[in-house]
Amino acid sequence: MSDSVKYLLDEEHLPKFWYNINADLPEPMAPVLHPGTKTPITPDDLAPIFPRAVIEQEMSTEREVEIPKPVRDVYRQWRPSPMFRARRLEQALDTPARIYYKYEGVSPAGSHKPNTAIPQAFYNKIEGVKRITTETGAGQWGSSLALAGTFFDLEIVVFMVKVSFNHKPYRRAYMETLGAECIASPSDRTQSGRAILAEHPDSTGSLGIAISEAVELAVQRDDTRYALGSVLNHVLLHQTVTGLESIEQMQMADDYPDMVIGCTGGGSNFAGIAFPFLHQAMRDDLKTEFIAVEPSACPTLTKGAFAYDFGDTAHLTPLVKMYTLGSTFVPPGFHAGGLRYHGMAPQISHLAKLGLIKPRSYNQLECFDAGIRFAKAEGILPAPEANHAVRAAIHEAEKCRESGESKAILFNLCGHGHFDMQAYMDYKDGKLDDLSYDEGEMAMALAGLPGGC
Amino acid sequence: MSDSVKYLLDEEHLPKFWYNINADLPEPMAPVLHPGTKTPITPDDLAPIFPRAVIEQEMSTEREVEIPKPVRDVYRQWRPSPMFRARRLEQALDTPARIYYKYEGVSPAGSHKPNTAIPQAFYNKIEGVKRITTETGAGQWGSSLALAGTFFDLEIVVFMVKVSFNHKPYRRAYMETLGAECIASPSDRTQSGRAILAEHPDSTGSLGIAISEAVELAVQRDDTRYALGSVLNHVLLHQTVTGLESIEQMQMADDYPDMVIGCTGGGSNFAGIAFPFLHQAMRDDLKTEFIAVEPSACPTLTKGAFAYDFGDTAHLTPLVKMYTLGSTFVPPGFHAGGLRYHGMAPQISHLAKLGLIKPRSYNQLECFDAGIRFAKAEGILPAPEANHAVRAAIHEAEKCRESGESKAILFNLCGHGHFDMQAYMDYKDGKLDDLSYDEGEMAMALAGLPGGC
Repeated sequence: MSDSVKYLLDEEHLPKFWYNINADLPEPMAPVLHPGTKTPITPDDLAPIFPRAVIEQEMSTEREVEIPKPVRDVYRQWRPSPMFRARRLEQALDTPARIYYKYEGVSPAGSHKPNTAIPQAFYNKIEGVKRITTETGAGQWGSSLALAGTFFDLEIVVFMVKVSFNHKPYRRAYMETLGAECIASPSDRTQSGRAILAEHPDSTGSLGIAISEAVELAVQRDDTRYALGSVLNHVLLHQTVTGLESIEQMQMADDYPDMVIGCTGGGSNFAGIAFPFLHQAMRDDLKTEFIAVEPSACPTLTKGAFAYDFGDTAHLTPLVKMYTLGSTFVPPGFHAGGLRYHGMAPQISHLAKLGLIKPRSYNQLECFDAGIRFAKAEGILPAPEANHAVRAAIHEAEKCRESGESKAILFNLCGHGHFDMQAYMDYKDGKLDDLSYDEGEMAMALAGLPGGC
Repeated sequence: MSDSVKYLLDEEHLPKFWYNINADLPEPMAPVLHPGTKTPITPDDLAPIFPRAVIEQEMSTEREVEIPKPVRDVYRQWRPSPMFRARRLEQALDTPARIYYKYEGVSPAGSHKPNTAIPQAFYNKIEGVKRITTETGAGQWGSSLALAGTFFDLEIVVFMVKVSFNHKPYRRAYMETLGAECIASPSDRTQSGRAILAEHPDSTGSLGIAISEAVELAVQRDDTRYALGSVLNHVLLHQTVTGLESIEQMQMADDYPDMVIGCTGGGSNFAGIAFPFLHQAMRDDLKTEFIAVEPSACPTLTKGAFAYDFGDTAHLTPLVKMYTLGSTFVPPGFHAGGLRYHGMAPQISHLAKLGLIKPRSYNQLECFDAGIRFAKAEGILPAPEANHAVRAAIHEAEKCRESGESKAILFNLCGHGHFDMQAYMDYKDGKLDDLSYDEGEMAMALAGLPGGC
């Protein structure tokens, strides 16, 4: 047996800059619109929601954005994160493919989410903010912001999508232990939540609803801002530390990926690993493939419309042009809660529309099966979200076995599954199935897309 | 705020040898006795239970024992593990103490236990064993052997102490997901289990009972051996990678510990970090203190007898001289399941008897409180067992605040608490208290110590 290999960078190789793909887009993105006037928004429009530094990053077109020293000092606790060559998995699959994975589960919260939670908390802190509100699906993001809150002494309020709140009491316990407040969404704490509950008392919630609640709470108080864990440009920017490190680690391995794979809910972990390689591919005309993997039950990139839409259900956010299933779409309660979002990061949507990113979807059961095969080979149990990337990587490795080609496959193992054991138990006990969205509901949600923009 | 600092060794500094303290004991240990004849056991006596290589290590007095390459190749997945200077905790405590912690939660199973699970599985594999049985308390050890089983393609059967089996269904799910079989102990699968159930149908189990069951199952089949996760010399030997790495990491930090702290159940994580430093202290006549921390509700080192006793409840194991509460003692069902053992590693007992190790105990609630303070400062949520070491470290740092002394405190943060969230929820909800052992039961268990040896 030849063993799996770890590629670990020295701390001096911790990136000093994030990579901003806005500098390199082959065509400009459609502007973000004010929900009222439907004209392009200004920094002032966003000021009640985000700190100034974050708004600047959201709109920046500079290729390199400096990572502040206090953020790097916290990153250093677990970064640079390891990249592995999954030789044991290759052997188990009997494939000539070379499988690499970047492992973001080494962060204290267990996923890639602290990569953006830390800088967002930092920017809020230095601008005098006392409290941050947010939403969370599976809980990875809420946990990470709770963690950032302890490091920068900020009050954190998390609206957790109800289906995940019930599925994952231990994620909630984790956030609460770190001092955050965690509320099941839809809740009676906000007007948006109460409106949903009045119409759908049994609502299992969605990221779109939870975002509405968090934004509503944030704008009510001067000392409070809102933080988003994915979708927006600045979040994707922060995640590029992952891909920037991976570029150096692939050099250590004396190899280069033929394809880069990540799961996509809002799109940030995929962007994090893919954008720095996509930069090289665009610059040097490389044939690297970029595969964004989503659940078949929430097929934003593969079945959604490319249109202006709201980021949330109550229509408090600006309008962004993206792939979307419609902001009122509520996906079924599958276990990869972090992928239950109706929209997709505008940057990823734009690049997918241009054909630079290839979307793909898989069903729930085949993803759990892939995750368990990975765990038995590599010893790390992935989060259900990450299983989508694992599924695609295994699928590609199996294609190599058929064709005899030896491709280099790099994927982002964006988090571990320690807080997802109920899902694994349910899978093992045969209690899960391949949930489908409601066709009629999706058609209605799509029909409800805002016109006139 | 000055930030916590990580000291990470290059892979080339992964130790090539384990350190065997049997080479340096100031007085020889009492021999291990055959339970029937009460004469010193021979390697042949142990052959039905352990593979030959393990038996040799158990009896070896060579100072350095080579770590086989295939074991180092697996270690490399997460080793060398990081050591941190806990500056944020120091600031939160307003102490002049310098607090360092070695973090073993980075292993895929989340604790130090794979350090010995991997070599034990390896030695069994190369000697043709197909199946390994074991016991587990909190589940850290069972998870680690399950992990080692996947790496070396071995069948793993785990008897899990019933109170933990019920407290921690997700630990069980983790082991089962990795392909291991997990059975609540006492069980009806063995004679020892059935005997206990007949007398105490509501028994919450203990490590002593689970060991009996695992040993009984192992000796029934030629292709099966047993593995122990703590207590024995070879287990403590394997754990010394922790301390050997820490010695180099303290050099990186340009510092040296005034005290080395670890929690003690069977004693292996404490030995792992302490023995290499104790070697230096004995050799160079240093004043380093070695503090072994146990739960007040299972006070083996602080209230037990130093006597010959069985390692298990059904008296299937050899007799070893150790601190013990009596092999029939069943501690109350507190949450640090990994510390619920009636005995203590003979090496640690011997060194404590000689005054080279200082035992100490703390109550459950103050340990949870310490763990949460640590998590809020350092971002890592410790396992309830590790909270005992955290409690002692904070206690010592607080003493420094009183006295104004700046001592260097090193402790082993032997595992994370991701699978212990129920305990943290119960603590937060005020459902836990400082459980005490039953004085009468302990007196009876001590009175039942085997005589004539």
